[in-house]
Amino acid sequence: MNNKHKASVVKVIISDVDGVLTDGGIIYDSQGNESKRFHVRDGLMMKHIQSLGFKVGVITGRDSSVVRKRCEELGLAFHYHGIKDKIQCYEKIKATYNFSDVEVAYIGDDWNDLSLLQRVGFSAAPVDAAEAVRKSVDFLLHSKGGEGAFRELAEYILKSQNQYETLLNNFFKP
Amino acid sequence: MNNKHKASVVKVIISDVDGVLTDGGIIYDSQGNESKRFHVRDGLMMKHIQSLGFKVGVITGRDSSVVRKRCEELGLAFHYHGIKDKIQCYEKIKATYNFSDVEVAYIGDDWNDLSLLQRVGFSAAPVDAAEAVRKSVDFLLHSKGGEGAFRELAEYILKSQNQYETLLNNFFKP
Amino acid sequence: MNNKHKASVVKVIISDVDGVLTDGGIIYDSQGNESKRFHVRDGLMMKHIQSLGFKVGVITGRDSSVVRKRCEELGLAFHYHGIKDKIQCYEKIKATYNFSDVEVAYIGDDWNDLSLLQRVGFSAAPVDAAEAVRKSVDFLLHSKGGEGAFRELAEYILKSQNQYETLLNNFFKP
Amino acid sequence: MNNKHKASVVKVIISDVDGVLTDGGIIYDSQGNESKRFHVRDGLMMKHIQSLGFKVGVITGRDSSVVRKRCEELGLAFHYHGIKDKIQCYEKIKATYNFSDVEVAYIGDDWNDLSLLQRVGFSAAPVDAAEAVRKSVDFLLHSKGGEGAFRELAEYILKSQNQYETLLNNFFKP
Repeated sequence: MNNKHKASVVKVIISDVDGVLTDGGIIYDSQGNESKRFHVRDGLMMKHIQSLGFKVGVITGRDSSVVRKRCEELGLAFHYHGIKDKIQCYEKIKATYNFSDVEVAYIGDDWNDLSLLQRVGFSAAPVDAAEAVRKSVDFLLHSKGGEGAFRELAEYILKSQNQYETLLNNFFKP
Repeated sequence: MNNKHKASVVKVIISDVDGVLTDGGIIYDSQGNESKRFHVRDGLMMKHIQSLGFKVGVITGRDSSVVRKRCEELGLAFHYHGIKDKIQCYEKIKATYNFSDVEVAYIGDDWNDLSLLQRVGFSAAPVDAAEAVRKSVDFLLHSKGGEGAFRELAEYILKSQNQYETLLNNFFKP
Repeated sequence: MNNKHKASVVKVIISDVDGVLTDGGIIYDSQGNESKRFHVRDGLMMKHIQSLGFKVGVITGRDSSVVRKRCEELGLAFHYHGIKDKIQCYEKIKATYNFSDVEVAYIGDDWNDLSLLQRVGFSAAPVDAAEAVRKSVDFLLHSKGGEGAFRELAEYILKSQNQYETLLNNFFKP
Repeated sequence: MNNKHKASVVKVIISDVDGVLTDGGIIYDSQGNESKRFHVRDGLMMKHIQSLGFKVGVITGRDSSVVRKRCEELGLAFHYHGIKDKIQCYEKIKATYNFSDVEVAYIGDDWNDLSLLQRVGFSAAPVDAAEAVRKSVDFLLHSKGGEGAFRELAEYILKSQNQYETLLNNFFKP
């Protein structure tokens, strides 16, 4: 089954955070604050694609107030933080929202994403992901983490479902 | 009508902010602060080109104190924040400042810029803009957002109007 | 003796900080705070490789609360800050932990790392290190500082000891 | 007179700040703070080269507490902030420190650096400087601003005066 076909049945997009929605940087300052850099075009696409009925969520191994704030701003369907076992968390989400594996796309960049990447119907990684991840996903993106990797995946899924043009046309005035 | 000709009649340059004047990054810290990164050479050119009588303004979909502060520092003719419908905002600006579409250059990077990019006389985008934007502008810049995209556009307009050398010569001492 | 062989006997990995675990950037704000950007995939590997019994430590010429905080978060075996003479510090560490030079890999990017890079069994540098450092190390990495240079070195060492696959397999669910 | 010869008589290195010692980024946060990113390898070289008797100073068009703090940390011979007319400032420095134009190297990236770049004995610019600057300097560096541009210039000057190896050798232990 090729990527186009795998993408065509996706209804839920789940994303890792560090190295996917961010460039992997964790910025510490001398006051003990932590910062992360997200990308505006990922955020806009999350809003657009949710407006079409797709569910977008986050499962991340770290737990920071920075990421919680960003997830709330984006109005995500679900977001789980500080998750050691991503598969276990995923099982709970599946039970709650009632979808099957083939309906899920997951994007991750590191080893703790591998089991979930293998499980879902359509797996993707930023071009600068860890070597073992790059080698095991269905779809290796052209974008780096934090530079539109989520956006690229979402546009690909929309195109595979012939929803890209429909959504885009809303942005042109008659 | 080619780009050189389109640029030659521009009197007003309007810019989007995130992904154009910035690299698209939105940095969150654990205290709830938001940061954005602008480029010094964009800012200097905004001052130079305004001194020649060009109007420079900003229309942005987001609303943040960060961007308001930067716009004030740059002494922009106008800056509108939190704008959902950029065309509507643009109509008001046109009425206030009394210019026609062909006199306006607009630079944007994402879908919510598309209608305005189609409307103005001369449209441009950073090289890392969203795919649909890259494909629909008159002038795809060599620069990325936040790395001098506005600067590149402004220098192109100045050259097309034979004002580049005149302005530049002020910076050489006799 | 080639790199693969040198790497195969390493038990201790010592890293410089600025320009290796960070991109060399020191960010100052108008309040007098200092920030540095670390990479999440370096940090995760530090935890993984320590769980296999490797010792990971830091010797840095600067002293900042930012770096101390990061080192504690990563649970490093040792971390020395504000060190003018890295060889002298290294001698003390050797005496405390009882290892020989050939068991040590060191990664650094600048001139004050040169004497220690020459001393240890296996020396490495990020691809954007100072010219004199790039020319004198055993292993010039493909990664830049702060973009996974430590990660690349650690994966190389794990592979040379046939521990890469073993560690990685823990991340796949049956 | 070629670059090697011009560099061989330099005793004073003066640098612009934004776009040279930084990547040109000005980061604003929602509290009104401003941040800039410097590079650790530029800072270390400033200390090394001053220890050999070279004078290192800064003339910048902007005035920020961020830059003042960095200049003090680096122990610069002089640093002038908020300078509109860099030539006038340069004349005062020349009178105070008693050096001639051919003994000065200046590195800048933008139009307000042009007159001073033309005046000094040896002029340089980062590879991402404004077009007009790139075209008018003696030495176009390989490095971008904030990624070691000052470092590259200083190493070139040291080599032209046969002081590179001497300085470097201090960093190797017998």
